[in-house]
Amino acid sequence: MIDFKAAIRTIPDYPKPGIQFRDITTLLSDPTAFRASVDALVAPYADGKIRHVVGIEARGFILGGALAHQLTAGFIPIRKRGKLPRETVSVTYELEYGEDEMELHRDAILPGERILLTDDLIATGGTAIGGVKLLRDLGAEIVAACFLVDLPDLGGSKKLREMGVDVRCLCEFEGD
Amino acid sequence: MIDFKAAIRTIPDYPKPGIQFRDITTLLSDPTAFRASVDALVAPYADGKIRHVVGIEARGFILGGALAHQLTAGFIPIRKRGKLPRETVSVTYELEYGEDEMELHRDAILPGERILLTDDLIATGGTAIGGVKLLRDLGAEIVAACFLVDLPDLGGSKKLREMGVDVRCLCEFEGD
Repeated sequence: MIDFKAAIRTIPDYPKPGIQFRDITTLLSDPTAFRASVDALVAPYADGKIRHVVGIEARGFILGGALAHQLTAGFIPIRKRGKLPRETVSVTYELEYGEDEMELHRDAILPGERILLTDDLIATGGTAIGGVKLLRDLGAEIVAACFLVDLPDLGGSKKLREMGVDVRCLCEFEGD
Repeated sequence: MIDFKAAIRTIPDYPKPGIQFRDITTLLSDPTAFRASVDALVAPYADGKIRHVVGIEARGFILGGALAHQLTAGFIPIRKRGKLPRETVSVTYELEYGEDEMELHRDAILPGERILLTDDLIATGGTAIGGVKLLRDLGAEIVAACFLVDLPDLGGSKKLREMGVDVRCLCEFEGD
């Protein structure tokens, strides 16, 4: 059994005093831990009925590419504004200071399609909630949202569950 | 046999007149084509001796995550400036107008380590050449650089080969 939390490096006071930054690059770069993470996250969905894994730019692309490959699903990116070349649906999400916009190709998803949404970490949930809205706008059925790390004290995973999304995380850090 | 070129969407005159934009999102979202791409790219390296796949932000993360998973390798990101929390090595690369900087965690690679470098597409090669420099600074042995698409008329793949890098691409578009 892999200790996923032990594979994640904590950097105190980054990017500013009082913040414990959870650095997943050490988990991703460990061949055994990375493989075990992907396999553990997708285990409940191995029946082959996931059509697409949707990853949120940028770190969600790494995990999303691997999850899609493991499930023999396709991969669809949710990108920051202005990066996708065709017609998109877009949503505004909140940042610590101000807000930003993210987009999904309108023709990427067919109504009723079964998808997994993924990102590396869920904190306040701003981007994940935005992703759920975009996918539901296009009629997708969100089978689950998968993350390596949950910071439950910041409330994002709770909000997602209140929206009816099945949330699956490999580990959590409290006190953040 | 998958026709990889047929799975890539071409968008004329994007982002400006005269440019044929090769949109790989249609290949990534096709479950069969995405899986076949990953399997074809890594086939020569299946002996298990690749320690890390290094992907270039942002689209290189998608393919890189899948390649690393398929090889049971770790994944290491090359990111835009200011995104990595620990000490980095950095390199400046040229953009169409001006230049930018990208970074790699200094402690991510051990000297002599065998790695694959990857991105979705190679055009003029600015970011790929920057990636090779960063990896060689840290003493990595670059076994190959893998791309879905080569635009050979823009010269990047030729430059990489002149630097002694084995370049592997699934398909090419000429006349770009």
